[in-house]
Amino acid sequence: MSDLLWPGDARSGDLFTDASVLSALLRVESAWVDTDLSSLAGPDDLGFLSTAAEQGGNPVIPLLALLRERLGEDPLAKTLHRGLTSQDVLDTALVLCARDAAARLRDELDAQVTTLAALADRHRRTDMAGRTLTQHAVPITFGLKVAGWLEGVLDARTVLHAAADLPAQFGGAAGSLAALVAAEGSTDRVTAAAARLGLPLREPWHTSRAPFTRFGDALVTCTDAWGRIAADVLVGARPEIGELREGRGGGSSAMPNKQNPVLSVLLRRAALAGPPLAATLHTAAATMVDERADGAWHLEWPALRTLARRTVAAASQATELLRGLRVDEARMAATLAAARPGIEAEQREYETPGGPYRGATDEIIDAAVKRAEERPC
Amino acid sequence: MSDLLWPGDARSGDLFTDASVLSALLRVESAWVDTDLSSLAGPDDLGFLSTAAEQGGNPVIPLLALLRERLGEDPLAKTLHRGLTSQDVLDTALVLCARDAAARLRDELDAQVTTLAALADRHRRTDMAGRTLTQHAVPITFGLKVAGWLEGVLDARTVLHAAADLPAQFGGAAGSLAALVAAEGSTDRVTAAAARLGLPLREPWHTSRAPFTRFGDALVTCTDAWGRIAADVLVGARPEIGELREGRGGGSSAMPNKQNPVLSVLLRRAALAGPPLAATLHTAAATMVDERADGAWHLEWPALRTLARRTVAAASQATELLRGLRVDEARMAATLAAARPGIEAEQREYETPGGPYRGATDEIIDAAVKRAEERPC
Amino acid sequence: MSDLLWPGDARSGDLFTDASVLSALLRVESAWVDTDLSSLAGPDDLGFLSTAAEQGGNPVIPLLALLRERLGEDPLAKTLHRGLTSQDVLDTALVLCARDAAARLRDELDAQVTTLAALADRHRRTDMAGRTLTQHAVPITFGLKVAGWLEGVLDARTVLHAAADLPAQFGGAAGSLAALVAAEGSTDRVTAAAARLGLPLREPWHTSRAPFTRFGDALVTCTDAWGRIAADVLVGARPEIGELREGRGGGSSAMPNKQNPVLSVLLRRAALAGPPLAATLHTAAATMVDERADGAWHLEWPALRTLARRTVAAASQATELLRGLRVDEARMAATLAAARPGIEAEQREYETPGGPYRGATDEIIDAAVKRAEERPC
Amino acid sequence: MSDLLWPGDARSGDLFTDASVLSALLRVESAWVDTDLSSLAGPDDLGFLSTAAEQGGNPVIPLLALLRERLGEDPLAKTLHRGLTSQDVLDTALVLCARDAAARLRDELDAQVTTLAALADRHRRTDMAGRTLTQHAVPITFGLKVAGWLEGVLDARTVLHAAADLPAQFGGAAGSLAALVAAEGSTDRVTAAAARLGLPLREPWHTSRAPFTRFGDALVTCTDAWGRIAADVLVGARPEIGELREGRGGGSSAMPNKQNPVLSVLLRRAALAGPPLAATLHTAAATMVDERADGAWHLEWPALRTLARRTVAAASQATELLRGLRVDEARMAATLAAARPGIEAEQREYETPGGPYRGATDEIIDAAVKRAEERPC
Repeated sequence: MSDLLWPGDARSGDLFTDASVLSALLRVESAWVDTDLSSLAGPDDLGFLSTAAEQGGNPVIPLLALLRERLGEDPLAKTLHRGLTSQDVLDTALVLCARDAAARLRDELDAQVTTLAALADRHRRTDMAGRTLTQHAVPITFGLKVAGWLEGVLDARTVLHAAADLPAQFGGAAGSLAALVAAEGSTDRVTAAAARLGLPLREPWHTSRAPFTRFGDALVTCTDAWGRIAADVLVGARPEIGELREGRGGGSSAMPNKQNPVLSVLLRRAALAGPPLAATLHTAAATMVDERADGAWHLEWPALRTLARRTVAAASQATELLRGLRVDEARMAATLAAARPGIEAEQREYETPGGPYRGATDEIIDAAVKRAEERPC
Repeated sequence: MSDLLWPGDARSGDLFTDASVLSALLRVESAWVDTDLSSLAGPDDLGFLSTAAEQGGNPVIPLLALLRERLGEDPLAKTLHRGLTSQDVLDTALVLCARDAAARLRDELDAQVTTLAALADRHRRTDMAGRTLTQHAVPITFGLKVAGWLEGVLDARTVLHAAADLPAQFGGAAGSLAALVAAEGSTDRVTAAAARLGLPLREPWHTSRAPFTRFGDALVTCTDAWGRIAADVLVGARPEIGELREGRGGGSSAMPNKQNPVLSVLLRRAALAGPPLAATLHTAAATMVDERADGAWHLEWPALRTLARRTVAAASQATELLRGLRVDEARMAATLAAARPGIEAEQREYETPGGPYRGATDEIIDAAVKRAEERPC
Repeated sequence: MSDLLWPGDARSGDLFTDASVLSALLRVESAWVDTDLSSLAGPDDLGFLSTAAEQGGNPVIPLLALLRERLGEDPLAKTLHRGLTSQDVLDTALVLCARDAAARLRDELDAQVTTLAALADRHRRTDMAGRTLTQHAVPITFGLKVAGWLEGVLDARTVLHAAADLPAQFGGAAGSLAALVAAEGSTDRVTAAAARLGLPLREPWHTSRAPFTRFGDALVTCTDAWGRIAADVLVGARPEIGELREGRGGGSSAMPNKQNPVLSVLLRRAALAGPPLAATLHTAAATMVDERADGAWHLEWPALRTLARRTVAAASQATELLRGLRVDEARMAATLAAARPGIEAEQREYETPGGPYRGATDEIIDAAVKRAEERPC
Repeated sequence: MSDLLWPGDARSGDLFTDASVLSALLRVESAWVDTDLSSLAGPDDLGFLSTAAEQGGNPVIPLLALLRERLGEDPLAKTLHRGLTSQDVLDTALVLCARDAAARLRDELDAQVTTLAALADRHRRTDMAGRTLTQHAVPITFGLKVAGWLEGVLDARTVLHAAADLPAQFGGAAGSLAALVAAEGSTDRVTAAAARLGLPLREPWHTSRAPFTRFGDALVTCTDAWGRIAADVLVGARPEIGELREGRGGGSSAMPNKQNPVLSVLLRRAALAGPPLAATLHTAAATMVDERADGAWHLEWPALRTLARRTVAAASQATELLRGLRVDEARMAATLAAARPGIEAEQREYETPGGPYRGATDEIIDAAVKRAEERPC
């Protein structure tokens, strides 16, 4: 799967690709019957499945037809999917894909937290001009700025942690597990299948979609944090400011001189693209109806996929950006010097200007670093 | 404050009105200097403050000018706001307003949980047609449907609980508390002011906005849950279905015969209006820059206000809707009977049709009711 | 009506306020019966009407009750509103308000076009550094940049022109004008009422909402154009760049030294806030159903109002920004000089650097200026 | 290109696929040098190009490297892309793809207009219950309802017509065409290239993005119209109502009895998914800055692609839905009969109930049919 129009997409690898979704669908059907069905269908079937999905409105229906055909006389053909509905399989498959994405995100966030904590600590005494509404405000340190970035990433980690434990979906045709209980007399198969997939269970949530909206909101909380960092880098990388620079800059098709802050550009793009997709998940949740919705459910799938792939790609870009970030302390000092005496207006009201004006900076950095060392909860 | 174009707005009373925001701004400035300043400005000043807010871009600047003028020779005129920045005061004031909204929401959610748990329990044996993609699927019970509604409300309560503990904002001009420390040698005033306001503290979050995005996402998670309930009521209230009815219907300007499901209509409206506003908070968070942003901060205020007022109004409407909901069990039974034998197609595969086909319904209702009795965590 | 949380709101005066909407509702009912009813209700009734609107879901129902009560024995009480439905009156009233907003916008856009055309022309030879992806690219002139701003404003004017001719809505209870025709034997009253209001007519559009989505899209096209200008001003106003400055800067609550580019900040805010509101109008249009929708219609009113007021306020701010804009040609020249030789990399491939490198700039400016002189079509 | 998670995607064929975008990029570079370069790169290069696009932030940069490498000693390697910038090529390529999408949409809209006009005409006397806020209101005819659908589709056609004439983008590094003029002394190449591509020209619009926002708004105006039709079909297809049915219904994985209104479900999904994507284009336009933006430009590409593919797929589904729509006149009559006398409440005020109550229905249908026969303008 290539995506010419989302540079960086390759970083999310096969997460949520059609092939991965198909594989996850097969894992769910496999877990249900406790038999590995993964060899029965594969990437070569995607063309057929995608096209055939339209007939019933989702890809599970043609997949089942395909599996049954390939199972032939195998008695499994009769028990396959018994007691389930398409939404059970597709929801749970999306949960499996989301779990993989969340694992990638956690690793990246952890790496960023480590990098940022060290960066904040290292620049406790790197004085620079603080800026508000684009104008010089008062002196700060770069460490303080980084502590703010770190808090954003830590918040994202916390929010993701609370949202990532997505449950399996097993409810049957209308959420009562009636066919399963009728056929087998118990819901033991549900418990077993969830255990095989390593997923937590909850009551059927076919039309109560907070698990997905919460996950989407967490993804956007991540891109928010990186977008805010990218915005600072984009300002700092302007040649007239020159305080920050990406580790490697991107080239240009026309101007060989340029070193563009490409990672920040792409992060900013991802941060602007995310909120409407998370909103789409909420719109879906808000328009659920009956025991399975007439469009709202279908609306979720591509929003989840796109949001997850882009967030993972952005996570990787953000880690690379932070690890490679070049800080020009001399330029920071020069900007600050040039901003005097205006930038010391507030300082003059309280103390002799010229000295450090760092207030509680150390405590703030300490607190952020300490929080960085804790596990999210 | 009237709102002719958001019927039901009056239910949110004075939450987040201009007068309430002004009162909260005064409470923050009061807590900072440990002196009650509430008599120094009031609703009569709103016209001036609103207009004058444009000059500096926010209402705190003209408020301070007004307070200083009215304090005259009072020495407080010098210490007022010392060490703070406009954003500290406005953010913390919005947090105070949000706390009031959250308290209202918690009460409404608790009431709904109680109502829904009882409703689910009462209708364990009320058989009806389950519907998927608008068509009859398999028999369910109305209790099962209500259990799904309840799970949605419980999820919203959980999400809100995690998001509602919004912290005070005290950072000074660029987030280092430099002026405060310069003037007073410590940050004790921060701790004291937060305690006076009864707010938790965290490091300055001027441009790390997860507290506000998380709150906004929680509000929308609430309206999602009610929107999904309203959608079911709107279907059930169609005269051809007639299984559900609002306690009191709304009239019409032209058709005296009509009993419109007005609460559901208005809930649906609120549920559709919310997601873009929560997305706006994320867009703001994602475009924060420098030590105070050049527009993104300003973008948050009305989004928070509007979202909070509408969510509280919707909460009250949802409580009323649920309390007054009329369930026509006879119509449910009649629909189900008329849907046979088609609706028993699945059932025929597993057991003798005609009997109950309830599967794990009781366990599912039990689980939802049990969860309803727990505190959110 | 004050709005403490949208600085600049006062610029839109009484457009779309509750009082204006009420006045417009009265004008519509007046035009229908060819009698001035404006003295029968007024701002003092807004509290009642807002609260009472919830009962039937819209403010027209209680307004009619009020009018009938006040008409008492007047025979008009019987013919009032005859043949209309609430949506006719409210839609047409919103159209009247929108027409007023469009007139304001047209004036502002015309003023901006004049200012920008002169500015582009004046700065044909003002060389400066062109920037792409934040980095210096090749030399341009400030006139070229302004020509780009102008094209954006001209596009907005064109789009608004095509969208602003909103039609009256007269369809009766379900869009067939059945009651009117039954009572009067013709639809002459529709033609007369539209003529009295000075509005074009079209077939009833109760659930075909392109007139409103098109208008909303046009409003956002305006704020897009100003947001893009504001973004350039915000970059140019950074002290390290210093090429652009607002005519008057805004102050700060903590830092007396600062001159914030407040108009640009507020324009940027408006530009970020608009798209989700226009999207809300589309979501409403996309979820219309039956002969009057169950929430989608109600969703439109506040979105239209808010979007229109904010766009008009932004229009006025944009005009002020452009008229007062200070251009520092010396700083532009200095930046360009400092950017050499890097910024001449492309130039070196084609000609002797050091000379002007303006390409088709004059033609581009000429074309924009010429388009500025034409009427939108 | 398969899309397992957007059933119906195959209907949009190769519009805007990576391969199509690559082909369009090659066509633009070809038109620029008046030489067919299409054999120099193809689908096999997509993997490399997609991955390599990240380095400079867009796919044009690696494509040029590839072309130059493959041209080897060919003198074309030197003139290739001379005077252009990446954005020129990518914007114009997206315009070419959009033109193809617009052509498909026009055909579908024309077909729908024809079908709807005939359907409205055929059902002038098909009485049915009009519904507002889900409740029976007054009698209407199905022809009147269809006339409303038709007006929505006609509006969409008009809006698309005005938006679809997207211009070529040729501006060079910073929009002045400086390199081109330096190298060739004129801008004749621009005129020639646009003519070869069959595209209109306008001044460079690198950061003035109304052409793209207008196109996106038009796409959503289309899905709005179909979403509104689908909503009516979804209501009418409910078994308790049964007045409308899709030509072929979709099956179910668990319930062999079901005939789901799948086309309507998928149209509803598309209609809910569109507005946030069009809003994303506006957010991009509103955050453009400098001579090429630092993320906002990149944000547009996937939004345009996704919106266009989905709209074309929905167009095809809508045409199929309308052509196959089954109207159950007997059920309509039965519903209406059962709704009496309540539904005649208004009628009783004006005339003897029981007779037709069609008001201006014929004139309204006539007007819509007449408009259907005109060309959009």
